[in-house]
Amino acid sequence: MAGVDYLADERNKAEFDVDSMKIVWAGSRHTFEVADRISKLVANDPAFRKDDRPMLPRKELFKNTLRKAAYAWKLITELRLSEEEASKLRFFVDEPAYTDLHWGMFVPALKGQCTDEQQSKWLPLAYKMQIIGCYAQTELGHGSNVQGLETTATFDPQTDEFVIHSPTLTSSKCYHTVEVLCTWWPGGLGKVSTHAVVYARLITDGKDHGVHGFIVQLRSMEDHKPLPGITVGDIGMKFGNGAYNTMDNGVLTLDHVRIPRDQMMMRVSQVTREGKYKQSDVPRQLVYGTMVYVRQKIVADASCALSKAVCIATRYSAVRRQFGSQNGGPETQSAHYRKSYTGLIQVIDYKTQQNRLFPLLASAYAFRFVGEWLKWLYTDVTQRLAVNDFSTLPEAHACTAGLKSLTTTATADGIEECRKLCGGHGYLCTSGLPELFAVYVPACTYEGDNIVLLLQVARFLMKTVSQIGSGKQPVGTIAYMGRVEHLLKSRCSVQRAEDWLNPSQVLEAFEARAARMSVSCAQNLSKFSNPEEGFAELSADLVEAAVAHCQLIVVSKFLDKLQQDIPGKGVKQLLQAVCGIYYLSLLHKHQGEFLATSYITPKQAALASDQLRALYSKVRPNAIALVDSFNYTDHFLGSILGCYDGNVYPKLYEAAKKDPLNDTVVPDGYHEYLKPLLKQQLHSAKL
Amino acid sequence: MAGVDYLADERNKAEFDVDSMKIVWAGSRHTFEVADRISKLVANDPAFRKDDRPMLPRKELFKNTLRKAAYAWKLITELRLSEEEASKLRFFVDEPAYTDLHWGMFVPALKGQCTDEQQSKWLPLAYKMQIIGCYAQTELGHGSNVQGLETTATFDPQTDEFVIHSPTLTSSKCYHTVEVLCTWWPGGLGKVSTHAVVYARLITDGKDHGVHGFIVQLRSMEDHKPLPGITVGDIGMKFGNGAYNTMDNGVLTLDHVRIPRDQMMMRVSQVTREGKYKQSDVPRQLVYGTMVYVRQKIVADASCALSKAVCIATRYSAVRRQFGSQNGGPETQSAHYRKSYTGLIQVIDYKTQQNRLFPLLASAYAFRFVGEWLKWLYTDVTQRLAVNDFSTLPEAHACTAGLKSLTTTATADGIEECRKLCGGHGYLCTSGLPELFAVYVPACTYEGDNIVLLLQVARFLMKTVSQIGSGKQPVGTIAYMGRVEHLLKSRCSVQRAEDWLNPSQVLEAFEARAARMSVSCAQNLSKFSNPEEGFAELSADLVEAAVAHCQLIVVSKFLDKLQQDIPGKGVKQLLQAVCGIYYLSLLHKHQGEFLATSYITPKQAALASDQLRALYSKVRPNAIALVDSFNYTDHFLGSILGCYDGNVYPKLYEAAKKDPLNDTVVPDGYHEYLKPLLKQQLHSAKL
Repeated sequence: MAGVDYLADERNKAEFDVDSMKIVWAGSRHTFEVADRISKLVANDPAFRKDDRPMLPRKELFKNTLRKAAYAWKLITELRLSEEEASKLRFFVDEPAYTDLHWGMFVPALKGQCTDEQQSKWLPLAYKMQIIGCYAQTELGHGSNVQGLETTATFDPQTDEFVIHSPTLTSSKCYHTVEVLCTWWPGGLGKVSTHAVVYARLITDGKDHGVHGFIVQLRSMEDHKPLPGITVGDIGMKFGNGAYNTMDNGVLTLDHVRIPRDQMMMRVSQVTREGKYKQSDVPRQLVYGTMVYVRQKIVADASCALSKAVCIATRYSAVRRQFGSQNGGPETQSAHYRKSYTGLIQVIDYKTQQNRLFPLLASAYAFRFVGEWLKWLYTDVTQRLAVNDFSTLPEAHACTAGLKSLTTTATADGIEECRKLCGGHGYLCTSGLPELFAVYVPACTYEGDNIVLLLQVARFLMKTVSQIGSGKQPVGTIAYMGRVEHLLKSRCSVQRAEDWLNPSQVLEAFEARAARMSVSCAQNLSKFSNPEEGFAELSADLVEAAVAHCQLIVVSKFLDKLQQDIPGKGVKQLLQAVCGIYYLSLLHKHQGEFLATSYITPKQAALASDQLRALYSKVRPNAIALVDSFNYTDHFLGSILGCYDGNVYPKLYEAAKKDPLNDTVVPDGYHEYLKPLLKQQLHSAKL
Repeated sequence: MAGVDYLADERNKAEFDVDSMKIVWAGSRHTFEVADRISKLVANDPAFRKDDRPMLPRKELFKNTLRKAAYAWKLITELRLSEEEASKLRFFVDEPAYTDLHWGMFVPALKGQCTDEQQSKWLPLAYKMQIIGCYAQTELGHGSNVQGLETTATFDPQTDEFVIHSPTLTSSKCYHTVEVLCTWWPGGLGKVSTHAVVYARLITDGKDHGVHGFIVQLRSMEDHKPLPGITVGDIGMKFGNGAYNTMDNGVLTLDHVRIPRDQMMMRVSQVTREGKYKQSDVPRQLVYGTMVYVRQKIVADASCALSKAVCIATRYSAVRRQFGSQNGGPETQSAHYRKSYTGLIQVIDYKTQQNRLFPLLASAYAFRFVGEWLKWLYTDVTQRLAVNDFSTLPEAHACTAGLKSLTTTATADGIEECRKLCGGHGYLCTSGLPELFAVYVPACTYEGDNIVLLLQVARFLMKTVSQIGSGKQPVGTIAYMGRVEHLLKSRCSVQRAEDWLNPSQVLEAFEARAARMSVSCAQNLSKFSNPEEGFAELSADLVEAAVAHCQLIVVSKFLDKLQQDIPGKGVKQLLQAVCGIYYLSLLHKHQGEFLATSYITPKQAALASDQLRALYSKVRPNAIALVDSFNYTDHFLGSILGCYDGNVYPKLYEAAKKDPLNDTVVPDGYHEYLKPLLKQQLHSAKL
């Protein structure tokens, strides 16, 4: 059956130019071409095989990752790949590894926090991977637990060294977290990294100057053994088969470890030879640039992970057929007696399937476009920081915090929903969805817990509301608050279902809902004499207001995108339908908030649902082409259910045969544990 | 630190009698005592250790399960445990195994579908486990794919045998599912079962009589090898570490396999020696009794799985402490410079945590009580069937279908939410939550896909609405439809937050919402000339109406429970608060539906939220005692984060050391893949 495309009929239904959509998805022709070339390079190289991951025990799995990382690095150097190509290659290898942290955290930390002199020493080593580094501070990005950090770096003027020391777990009180006492979680730390950026409270001459970063060598460059005073290891298995178990997340304790003074990262503050603590004139707001960068990357990753899941579920929904009576038909025994199987329907034609799948498809596109906009925001923030303009920082910070939270939560939930949309077979590792989910979910927790981030957004919203009328005009994503008086009293003017396709109508609905929820929270907060107490008490409402604000951002950036020139037959029209599905499914899901704030009426909510169903019908024939537009190879998808040619069942059957349990017909353990049981001889069996 | 209870302070806060609550949770003193005794028996026996599961490769994992099952059976026979005790023992061993299917599906199938004569032959063998059986029909319970089954059982009058045959996958068209062509998924089939109940289309004399069940021997009783014509194996790895990979879900094809005629299960229909097909006078509605039984068990399992997750998350939320500023405080770099860590707050004291956790705690109790009521329903249905009274079957069927769907969906989502509520550490296998989730999620798909089941409920609701005024009075859980006229025009009379504690007020709100949504769907359906087309088009709305109906059932059964006499200091008062959290959190989550149907006003919705917050404060000091009331051993919970004594961090640290990756300080693969990379010698490395 090789070569037959079982989804060809579906592909022929497309009403738009798929090649143009591929460019739109990639962001530019250049990006598309690089991704296309590198993804095929990886997919066609058997060294990057990944279908065996779920079956490998931890040690083999990890060793195999070391092999792939070395092989990838060899390719990168031998093929003289550019930085962009190298990064794409690691991306398409699609396996968490120590290199993620080396390139994604260690190198940027050196760049951002070291002086020029320090950089010229350390960066060349890191660029050639003569040293491998990790970032030994859990969740530094949002400050979690940093205040309680007990690791100290005490300057010893005698030797011109810092003595880095972390207390032991047993010497401390029960409520201390392992992160506070040791370093716990950093990827690449457990077994691989030769160096780490370690955060510790700087102490000079008995004075505590708070937390600073230090470059600490962990392991011998000769035999890879931990250096004296360093206890380091892996923190154990994590969620899922394969998944993040390819990574050596680690635990580290430091027992009076000495490092030279010049291994304190001194860009922002220094300790002199005499032990004097000094701040430099580099503005510390610079760290916000990094934060915006990291979060924009997380949003881009969200659209990637969600689109993979959606691609699998969409293709398999077109392959899989069920009987018409499945769809809530009478569940009678008489069905057992039917013999013909007329009425086979593709699962994707069920409205219930569309109602769960298409909003996720639309979210993947929505997150892609908001991620693209965040790239622009990062550039904008960086340029402003360069000229000491910090004015947009609070808004950029709130916006990226909120979008990180919104997109990662929706993506984690969406992947699991896609798994369920594949029925029983989504539960098989060969569907790719279990591993995709298990690899993805930590994104909801790292770089800022999603609920904590929403509360930060809420604080920003409350501050903005409190400044209304003060003459300070809200800018950027919060600019709509400047029209709050209008938004509080306006009413939705939708009269027919099609009116919900009007962008300005939609935008006002989302603005009115967000503004009203914020203002209502502010009013309720004002009833508390202690504002902090009020904030704590009303935090659940505040989180909802923050979500409303963030959804508005995503909707408005999608609508903005559609204002641009988008070439290609039918591409823009289809994206308009996809955008409509995104905002109308949100409107339906949160209709309580739209109704409670009285911006829309129940009748208008019903019209929105009618329009949503109409858009499902519009998108249905284009569904396969819309996921083809992601341009993912079968290797990258890693899913039999989502394979390009739709030839699912023979592949499932062949894959099953490879399970280790099928090495023998009679299973290991038969003679010890099954035969004695069947033969009633357990009394004498050794169990 | 052994023996110190770090949660003792929390336990002292409880305002109710925990021992009484344990009886309420268990259902009776007898059930409590059996569960308590057997769970401790299992927990104290090192043979049942399960913390190593996530680290075992598939073959070892499976072999270990065979050992445990044999050991458990040895205990059961040697200790002469009763059927109830034996079943509890298997339950507390807490590891999916072939015995689940043998006892849960194979034995019941023999009992339900065999004649008395057949039973007297097969049941004694099965009871002693001299044969081990599985149930080789995917999702038979709700008829999925059964119509398309291609396996045939052709009667051969020459030899008085059936010839069972399934076509090969490659000989068929692409859209056939593997379930249809082979048998795919049944637990216990892949490697263990000696026998199977196989479903096939019965053919006598060229005539197809539809699908019937047959007892087929799969493997030799001498050497366990598959018999001639039988190809059988495992279908491969499934979601999660450990989890369902202890089970040999299997694939089976039958190539002209011959079985004696008397191995057709003949209770409902027979084939005579001459090949004549006859129906017996046993009513086929009897199968519904089994369906009610199976689903009531699934609902009971849901409350168990959810309560385990809630117990872990609640205890860890009391152990874990964070800084006040975590809760949405300003995320500034200055935090790095703080040195004191005053203001440590237990995470469970955050309203955002309570707002996510307590509704799940309340759901665990709600599902427990509705499960208890379903046990009664099963008895009632069985008694009616015995006297050929089929009048309550449609309602019982809709009700169990809906509750299966509602509770399993909420439980799967709830376990994952509990995992997130534990922060980063919930991602570690030692938290127990990844495995709990991975083991649980198939419940959303098996025994009826949850969305398909809701559509069945919706059909029942539409039929009920259509019969209003016909004189046929709706009964049981649908009785409120008899008051639909009142429910359509009534308005909620809540004026103060406390009014939401009035049971009749609450019940009417949920009844009015459910009735209005059903009636609205029926009205929209009537606009379609083709009712089936309308049903398909509006299926998303119909699913929502079905959910509203099912939530009403759960709320009403919880309220009914509170009408009973519940002994023990403070127990009933606390359950009232828990019940309030259950229905008010539902009301908030679905406020769009309550508002859109205009039964409540935005003001009343806001009062409900106020009351909900007040109930969180009421439950907070009792939270630990409420999860202690489940009476789970640390073994059964299988979670370091949820351990009874709260001594989490030292245990996490010790557990990490046991990971295979920590067997050596320098990892396997260093010499092959890391050293050459660090030394810039990859060009000559073998990768």
